[in-house]
Amino acid sequence: MEAKSYILINGDGNLAYYSYYTKAYKGHIAYTPELGKYSILENGYIVVEGTKVKGVYKSLPKEYEYIEVENYGNRLIIPGFIDLHLHGSQLANRGLGLDLELMKWLNAHTFKEEARIKDLRYAETIYNETAKLLLKNGTTRAVIYGTLHRESTELLMNIVNKYGLGAYVGKVSQDKNSPDYLTENAVDAIKEEEVFLRDTINRYKLVKPIITPRFVPACSLELLKALGIMAQKYKVPVQSHLDEDLSEIDFVKEEYPQFKNYASIYDYDGLLGQKPTIMAHCVYLSDDEIRLLAKNKVYVAHCPTSNFNLSGSTAPIKKLIGKGIPVGLGTDIAAGHNISILKVMLQAIQASKVVYSRTHDEKDKLTSPEAFYLATKGGGSFFGKVGSFEEGYDFDALVIDDSNLVYVKPLSIEERIDRFIYIGDDRNIIKRFVAGRAV
Amino acid sequence: MEAKSYILINGDGNLAYYSYYTKAYKGHIAYTPELGKYSILENGYIVVEGTKVKGVYKSLPKEYEYIEVENYGNRLIIPGFIDLHLHGSQLANRGLGLDLELMKWLNAHTFKEEARIKDLRYAETIYNETAKLLLKNGTTRAVIYGTLHRESTELLMNIVNKYGLGAYVGKVSQDKNSPDYLTENAVDAIKEEEVFLRDTINRYKLVKPIITPRFVPACSLELLKALGIMAQKYKVPVQSHLDEDLSEIDFVKEEYPQFKNYASIYDYDGLLGQKPTIMAHCVYLSDDEIRLLAKNKVYVAHCPTSNFNLSGSTAPIKKLIGKGIPVGLGTDIAAGHNISILKVMLQAIQASKVVYSRTHDEKDKLTSPEAFYLATKGGGSFFGKVGSFEEGYDFDALVIDDSNLVYVKPLSIEERIDRFIYIGDDRNIIKRFVAGRAV
Repeated sequence: MEAKSYILINGDGNLAYYSYYTKAYKGHIAYTPELGKYSILENGYIVVEGTKVKGVYKSLPKEYEYIEVENYGNRLIIPGFIDLHLHGSQLANRGLGLDLELMKWLNAHTFKEEARIKDLRYAETIYNETAKLLLKNGTTRAVIYGTLHRESTELLMNIVNKYGLGAYVGKVSQDKNSPDYLTENAVDAIKEEEVFLRDTINRYKLVKPIITPRFVPACSLELLKALGIMAQKYKVPVQSHLDEDLSEIDFVKEEYPQFKNYASIYDYDGLLGQKPTIMAHCVYLSDDEIRLLAKNKVYVAHCPTSNFNLSGSTAPIKKLIGKGIPVGLGTDIAAGHNISILKVMLQAIQASKVVYSRTHDEKDKLTSPEAFYLATKGGGSFFGKVGSFEEGYDFDALVIDDSNLVYVKPLSIEERIDRFIYIGDDRNIIKRFVAGRAV
Repeated sequence: MEAKSYILINGDGNLAYYSYYTKAYKGHIAYTPELGKYSILENGYIVVEGTKVKGVYKSLPKEYEYIEVENYGNRLIIPGFIDLHLHGSQLANRGLGLDLELMKWLNAHTFKEEARIKDLRYAETIYNETAKLLLKNGTTRAVIYGTLHRESTELLMNIVNKYGLGAYVGKVSQDKNSPDYLTENAVDAIKEEEVFLRDTINRYKLVKPIITPRFVPACSLELLKALGIMAQKYKVPVQSHLDEDLSEIDFVKEEYPQFKNYASIYDYDGLLGQKPTIMAHCVYLSDDEIRLLAKNKVYVAHCPTSNFNLSGSTAPIKKLIGKGIPVGLGTDIAAGHNISILKVMLQAIQASKVVYSRTHDEKDKLTSPEAFYLATKGGGSFFGKVGSFEEGYDFDALVIDDSNLVYVKPLSIEERIDRFIYIGDDRNIIKRFVAGRAV
């Protein structure tokens, strides 16, 4: 239990130090080092040195016999959940207006709510709630759209950091085909983005900026090109939307007939894997686009709840994985109503079965451990060594008390995880760790 | 507040009287007298005489000025939820084995668990938990499969009655293509069913027997015929499964080549609307079957969660409604993992959008108020005047505290209901009434 050192967590005027030492966590440990199967250790130990996992052991090795053990008994210890795509500004829109399709819904609900976020006090309320709910639901790392308002987005980063969440946060860039009240001209958009990047790039340890063109329909080529250049210049990652909806794709085709497909517009502008990139949705990728994303190692943020809600569509996610595209899950608040990645896992399984009902190919079905992988290591790898309990991984973890779900007949650890995925909720998550720190 | 009379609630040796008087409930009242739109009264009164709704009023009429008013303030008052299809025995199987399809899953999980229900002590544990969870999640009436064990099923009825739930409960009849440990011969099955009906038909006020052939693949024609005769003789309703899964339908075709289709086998045996009938699933009805169900006013228990889970299939529910088939919702525990009809509403909306994604016909989409109707009056009408707040309806109601869901921007009552459907859960249900009685 001897403190070995101290590390800095916050750097935003709110300096906070905590003691850093080697510690073990005991419980039923489950994680997915690779797609498709759980690695399970009943009554095992995870040894954590500072922020990182040292190893997972059946019994504590000799060199650790004197370290503190936090014993969670019959509870499960699993990696924290990774949300690769949500709109932080849209919390107040959850469950509203979902009888509409994407383009109509954006105009009727999303844009209006985003405009309100310009008000820093309103932003503060919403973003505090968003950060709290993410943690409550077991998300330890998130990739978040802010709005085009730079100051509000910087506030979002401050709040997310305050709660101890790891995140990439983007100031949204959009300069066309949006309401006047939510449009910057290209020059201002580029300037503001550069200020945003400079302000935030070194401000926090676990919260970083990400370049965020809203999506092709809302961006000029001039803006996209400038964002691609900034991604190189500042070495920051990129996120956007791709091939979510048929009317969106038609719109892009009409707007940019000179391009082969939607993805190639991002590619042309240096926004498709030239720096680490996440594209949300990717429901309707053409074969050419699949090859392009696979080649450029572009992450797909699979958002099955959102896809069900807006148009009943389902991304062929096993096919994308099979082609070598890295995949994680996204709640896509608020087209996705539910901020819980646990619920998104389940919807990813269901969506894959809808795909299967068309193809009748068993390979198209996502199993529970596969969904678990996407929710943890799959998305986590975008953050580096995150989402698993292998040596050297950041210790992002959840302690799950499923005693209200397990009764009468004894279940294996694997069955308990399956049941947690299907009928668990935030009430079962009793402790959360991000990079070694209880949050 | 003057007591007017007394009525009998239980008749099972546990006689219980309660005082019966006219009372009003105040709050934001919402219900769906017809498919497609909410009837909403902000700060309104529901006057209840004994077990039944007298009326819904903007202000209390003069003749009621002295009655007791239970004031729920800013909370919502909505009809109780109706679950038209669940397997009471399968609670311990929720979330297990759902990577399998129907016929394999039945053999690997369902049948084994049903066999355990023969043990009355085990049955008692499971059925108590089932009844508690149904109420907790806002279900006030349910149509429940027991197992083939008569005594356990009678115990189920006793327990459901004890908790004050309204229900139809069936002893399952099955005499072929099932494991030995879960098969009766036709003669025993018929005898036991008759004992079951005689035992229970007049035992409870709100809990009644329903004839329950498991499904065609597990029943001989001899058994089906006898059950049809008993439905007439005892004037009891009928429930079974129909057209859930493609391999099931193929199986029925091979087994009964002399019949035109699956539904006509039930029809031939007097089990398809000759007495009020519910058929669960109906994912793959042929046009002939649709006509037959519509003509015979057979209820479809739409179980979208179960359909997603087992095969990714989606019943064309708006089409069935359009053809005049009465429809309600079912959780189908445990192929459906979630015992909450609230969650099934949402999945019904999502499933309808998947149908829409194939047909591109806006009419195929289920809106939120339509889903609400199916969950209340749609299914409730199987029980008589249940599921609405119109005059003469049984007062089955839920009080919803959505204060944790509503913040920052003001929402209309309709928006609050939408949000409750999307992100509410059992925590928001703070009071439940069945036929005028708080349960």
